[in-house]
Amino acid sequence: MNIHSERLSSDLSKNSITLPSQQHRVVDLIRTDGIHSRTDLAQRLGASRASVTGIVRELLEHGILEETTEAESTGGRRAKMLDFNADFGYVIGIDMGATSVDIALADFRGGFLGRHHATLDVSDGPDVVLKQVQEIALMLIAQHNIAAEAILSIGIGIPGPVDFTKGVLVSPPIMPGWEQYPIRQRMRESFSNATVVVDNDVNVMALGELRSGAGKGVDNFLFVKVGTGIGCGIVARGEIYRGSDGSAGDIGHIQADRDGPVCHCGNIGCVEAMASGTAIARQAMQLASAGSSPILAQYLTEGIPTLTAKHVGQAAHQGDQAAMELIKTSGSLIGQVLAGTVNFFNPSMILIGGGVSKIGSQFLATIRRGVLSRSLPLSTQHLRIDYSPMGDDAGVTGAVTLALEHVFIAQA
Amino acid sequence: MNIHSERLSSDLSKNSITLPSQQHRVVDLIRTDGIHSRTDLAQRLGASRASVTGIVRELLEHGILEETTEAESTGGRRAKMLDFNADFGYVIGIDMGATSVDIALADFRGGFLGRHHATLDVSDGPDVVLKQVQEIALMLIAQHNIAAEAILSIGIGIPGPVDFTKGVLVSPPIMPGWEQYPIRQRMRESFSNATVVVDNDVNVMALGELRSGAGKGVDNFLFVKVGTGIGCGIVARGEIYRGSDGSAGDIGHIQADRDGPVCHCGNIGCVEAMASGTAIARQAMQLASAGSSPILAQYLTEGIPTLTAKHVGQAAHQGDQAAMELIKTSGSLIGQVLAGTVNFFNPSMILIGGGVSKIGSQFLATIRRGVLSRSLPLSTQHLRIDYSPMGDDAGVTGAVTLALEHVFIAQA
Repeated sequence: MNIHSERLSSDLSKNSITLPSQQHRVVDLIRTDGIHSRTDLAQRLGASRASVTGIVRELLEHGILEETTEAESTGGRRAKMLDFNADFGYVIGIDMGATSVDIALADFRGGFLGRHHATLDVSDGPDVVLKQVQEIALMLIAQHNIAAEAILSIGIGIPGPVDFTKGVLVSPPIMPGWEQYPIRQRMRESFSNATVVVDNDVNVMALGELRSGAGKGVDNFLFVKVGTGIGCGIVARGEIYRGSDGSAGDIGHIQADRDGPVCHCGNIGCVEAMASGTAIARQAMQLASAGSSPILAQYLTEGIPTLTAKHVGQAAHQGDQAAMELIKTSGSLIGQVLAGTVNFFNPSMILIGGGVSKIGSQFLATIRRGVLSRSLPLSTQHLRIDYSPMGDDAGVTGAVTLALEHVFIAQA
Repeated sequence: MNIHSERLSSDLSKNSITLPSQQHRVVDLIRTDGIHSRTDLAQRLGASRASVTGIVRELLEHGILEETTEAESTGGRRAKMLDFNADFGYVIGIDMGATSVDIALADFRGGFLGRHHATLDVSDGPDVVLKQVQEIALMLIAQHNIAAEAILSIGIGIPGPVDFTKGVLVSPPIMPGWEQYPIRQRMRESFSNATVVVDNDVNVMALGELRSGAGKGVDNFLFVKVGTGIGCGIVARGEIYRGSDGSAGDIGHIQADRDGPVCHCGNIGCVEAMASGTAIARQAMQLASAGSSPILAQYLTEGIPTLTAKHVGQAAHQGDQAAMELIKTSGSLIGQVLAGTVNFFNPSMILIGGGVSKIGSQFLATIRRGVLSRSLPLSTQHLRIDYSPMGDDAGVTGAVTLALEHVFIAQA
């Protein structure tokens, strides 16, 4: 059997390696559930120990798995543990923001071999941006003497609404020229053997926390990114939930104030228009020019050309009252919108990430207060709201995970 | 093997019949996916035809399945189809509202043998109400010469937050005395062999539409009940989603207007306090007494003691402008709250049920307008919003389904 045979029926699974369904299930259990012993695999599959031994033997022969450390088994005998063969192949994870990108090269166990951060501008369009991304990825593999053909999969998080099956952006508000652009084909020009998986950036961050961070073992949680915009990745019953059109989690355009400003989407008072990094920066400039914030005004006179949410955090830290009020108002609006999602979705955890999450602890405190004041006690009794512990790493970690989870496809 | 053996480890599965995991999986595929041929079962299980034939033989021997009509198979040979043995046992479905109850007796294929509607008042407390419910259920089985011991399962939908695993109500706002009340034990006093499954009423309605109604084959949808309160059942990836504490879908307390009235939950401007049947009735009385609605005022002088949402619908139908405005305002507030859930959850369908859904088509039209005006185009391009086609039957149909789906439990 040629396990590297291609399946052409779906563009997503182009280049995916086809495995018999039981081998695929074993690979999945090791990858996503962290099950490493034959005994535990047999139990989870409801299959006999002999049958699992047979399946595992084939995966060992293919070089997909290898035997690792021995663990004391219950009977006193030592049982060999299973893990992925780190060098079966390599993957690339790409976390693209509106103005920067993080790219990581990882082995088949998910261990990072190298990573690179660069600035870019998604508004330069997909031709320019994806060329930059490919150059960085090619540089990374060259540094580690890995051939482009050894890259089995590439996971990409992109800040816009993604049709996950097709791997294209649909009506992206901040990314002119990207609509329906064939990202997969473009990436495969440099990495001809790779499966290319494209997802929304917040879904990818949620996946990072789910598999490797605070989301491990948490069935239902939200990852809320407060950056240029506001969006949210949803984990339902231990899996990323994308909705019927892939646009689930688009909370940035929920109304926070019906007397609020007009949003770029055309509606009034969207939370993104009032409490995103962009909105906070705009209000900071107004505070500075109106003379309400001496510290923010001083930043401008010191030569900072334009204020950002980061400056607001700094000013608040230096005791600027107007900056502190701005942070509180923004957190409170976000908390109010999240209260509605808590009543609806009843998650047990909300992780806040994105650039604005670095603005200080007051922001988190007012988000929490906003949620608690408007949600029902039953929904919040076990609810934890925190900054994402992975922070800036959630995206690139999730992108690597996304890539690893799409190397194989089950035989139909 | 005694297939009627009890599992005592969880109270939910007390009285459930234990089946080997592969038999359980076959029963599940026939019940929830409507798969009736051995060939299709083999394909879905990824198992050999011979292995499925063996599993099915045991289920036929137990009297759980029977062979039914023959279908033309692809090879020209006729293949026997499988279905449940209708008389393997019987189930009872109970749809409890705040002021009435619908109870159905069904055979093992889900066919209704009899049903009964009665008024009750949940505020009389669980002792009184469950006694009434048991008397009706016992009368129904007596009418059909079925012994109480032949009732294998009872599904109950209740208008309050339910801890699904424990089968008890948690902080029910409109049901004094029901908190943590042992509903299961109480029902088993009359039906000693029955598994008793308790769920929130809207979850049960969503389940009814999912298995037997407009929700068949729809992965992600909402069932919104507008009655005494406002709540919503969530279907995510083809399954009822209950959230981390069982309170998912509690949309009644999402803020619709921050200058709105105080809700019984203590918060301000909850949609339930402004647009539920209770809120519409209260506003109708105000319109009548303020002289703004001549037709509603006339109803009161004609001897109707207190106005309900139904009267508002009638008055609007007779051309009463104030009544029409009240309907439009209520629909619009609900639409605005649903717009937030559409942005967050991206369902492909919203079904509106509950008593207030009988108020007329203008109500549905303004809900639709409210959702469309505040949601993103990507989320609404394939979104269908309709009154529940099952209407009043969704609850009792779902309760029977809930019962049938919990007769068996898989061997651990």
